[in-house]
Amino acid sequence: MAFTTKATITTFGGRLLKLVHQSAVTGTEMAVNVFLPGAKAPSATKFPVLYYLSGLTCSPENCSEKGFVHAAAAKHGIAVVYPDTSPRGLDLPAEHDAYDFGSAASFYIDADAATPYGKNYRMETYITKELPALLFKEFADLDASRQSITGHSMGGHGALTLYLKNPGQYKSVSAFAPISNPTLCPWGQKAFKGYLGPADSDITPESAAADPSAVPAAWKAHDATELVKTWSGDLKMLIDVGTGDNFYVAKQLLPENFAQAVKDAGLAGLTLRYQDAYDHSYYFISSFSQDHVDHAAKHLFA
Amino acid sequence: MAFTTKATITTFGGRLLKLVHQSAVTGTEMAVNVFLPGAKAPSATKFPVLYYLSGLTCSPENCSEKGFVHAAAAKHGIAVVYPDTSPRGLDLPAEHDAYDFGSAASFYIDADAATPYGKNYRMETYITKELPALLFKEFADLDASRQSITGHSMGGHGALTLYLKNPGQYKSVSAFAPISNPTLCPWGQKAFKGYLGPADSDITPESAAADPSAVPAAWKAHDATELVKTWSGDLKMLIDVGTGDNFYVAKQLLPENFAQAVKDAGLAGLTLRYQDAYDHSYYFISSFSQDHVDHAAKHLFA
Repeated sequence: MAFTTKATITTFGGRLLKLVHQSAVTGTEMAVNVFLPGAKAPSATKFPVLYYLSGLTCSPENCSEKGFVHAAAAKHGIAVVYPDTSPRGLDLPAEHDAYDFGSAASFYIDADAATPYGKNYRMETYITKELPALLFKEFADLDASRQSITGHSMGGHGALTLYLKNPGQYKSVSAFAPISNPTLCPWGQKAFKGYLGPADSDITPESAAADPSAVPAAWKAHDATELVKTWSGDLKMLIDVGTGDNFYVAKQLLPENFAQAVKDAGLAGLTLRYQDAYDHSYYFISSFSQDHVDHAAKHLFA
Repeated sequence: MAFTTKATITTFGGRLLKLVHQSAVTGTEMAVNVFLPGAKAPSATKFPVLYYLSGLTCSPENCSEKGFVHAAAAKHGIAVVYPDTSPRGLDLPAEHDAYDFGSAASFYIDADAATPYGKNYRMETYITKELPALLFKEFADLDASRQSITGHSMGGHGALTLYLKNPGQYKSVSAFAPISNPTLCPWGQKAFKGYLGPADSDITPESAAADPSAVPAAWKAHDATELVKTWSGDLKMLIDVGTGDNFYVAKQLLPENFAQAVKDAGLAGLTLRYQDAYDHSYYFISSFSQDHVDHAAKHLFA
């Protein structure tokens, strides 16, 4: 068994497993929580899988405890996988200095090999390849052919970009308050500078509009607003953003830029909802997580 | 306004208010969270109120964040009140030495005036009289004529005893893993000794069975298994206990004693469910909290 089970907790008629395993991709031990429903949907022989990518500062615990995802997942018979937000147990340069870079702030990308993070911060490969392979090998009840992905804030960025970069891998995608245009917001620019290398000059929305080539191509490759421009087909995408979300107000999220790019590309299948007065917290996520599981179920059981 | 609002959080279509106020009963500032639904039930002119009493070590935050009470409360149009588990800001003898006595461990009783806790630890009066009076004075949307009560562990003890001691005040009661016979379990004996004064001799289930008068009358007055013996009428009571609950296994909860007392008294209206493999945590509470709100709604809207 590749996984060591640290805890098995009965909840909503199923089981939440708190697992750890050695990752060859990150070179570290990785924590992951997995919710296994108690019963499959009537037509299902295996459980489809919904990945939930957490936001800055979080671990697999936050959404497991506070997201209210399991009520709907149990109802539909969907397994939920909560990966960690970065490798742990390292001490890379500046890794633990700030809440928005390094530990618990991987942004779900593979850091450039030329940076101090290149060896271990390979979360894109971990989330899309290594972790699924291990899960489907060890848990025969999980259906490798039916996966969807969702996430919050930094994890919403992760969900949108990994979905857009891997056509066919996920049946649908959704996001709560996602960082939707990271190359043009402070959080994203700081992360991409550290993980991918700096831009030649400071980038503002105005300078990027005047000269799009000022944004490094390596950064654009991890920006949902850029990636969606070349998407073809139905987006199968649900996004919720609270209008009382301080980070939305501070233009860290920029869902309006993403929506404009979708519109400019003439794409169908984006449902973007602005939820009046909701904030950035799990009080917001829990209020709408059942809608997001229902959205995934619609496509996983289509 | 008797209350100071520390935060207003939109959730499940309503608002969670984090309040503090000065209590004349405890002589301290008290924290309380209040969930106000966004819409009333069709037949309602005001919101009925469900009190949730938390367990050892908790504050109003735990269940507000992790209990998933608001989904069902919003659906029914029920306000939820989360009082704190003790006065705060004091430094009474041994108050902060252990998790199961003193701060966050009031057991929702009025401590005897002869103990160091008598002046401030008057939670029974606070929960049943002062707090409701303040809430109904300040929030015109709350219906003083329709209250129910629930709670977890120590708060389950609180819910059961305050319901049984105040016939008519609450329309129904429920509890998650309640301390159901505190005079015969270590948690209850420690608390009652400290808050009410010691017994003449150590009490075991066997010694109490041989000589019931060995249990002080002042202790029995706060023990649901004792109080239910003189109840008349339908109990309107729902209790859930997990069979994988370490504290149930360790005989801290003793719901079996309570059930026996109900049976011996020939009372109707107790639904006691043993939930297979569930533990003592909010993973258990959240799995069944919607049932408990539904139970309260049945009686609040009867």
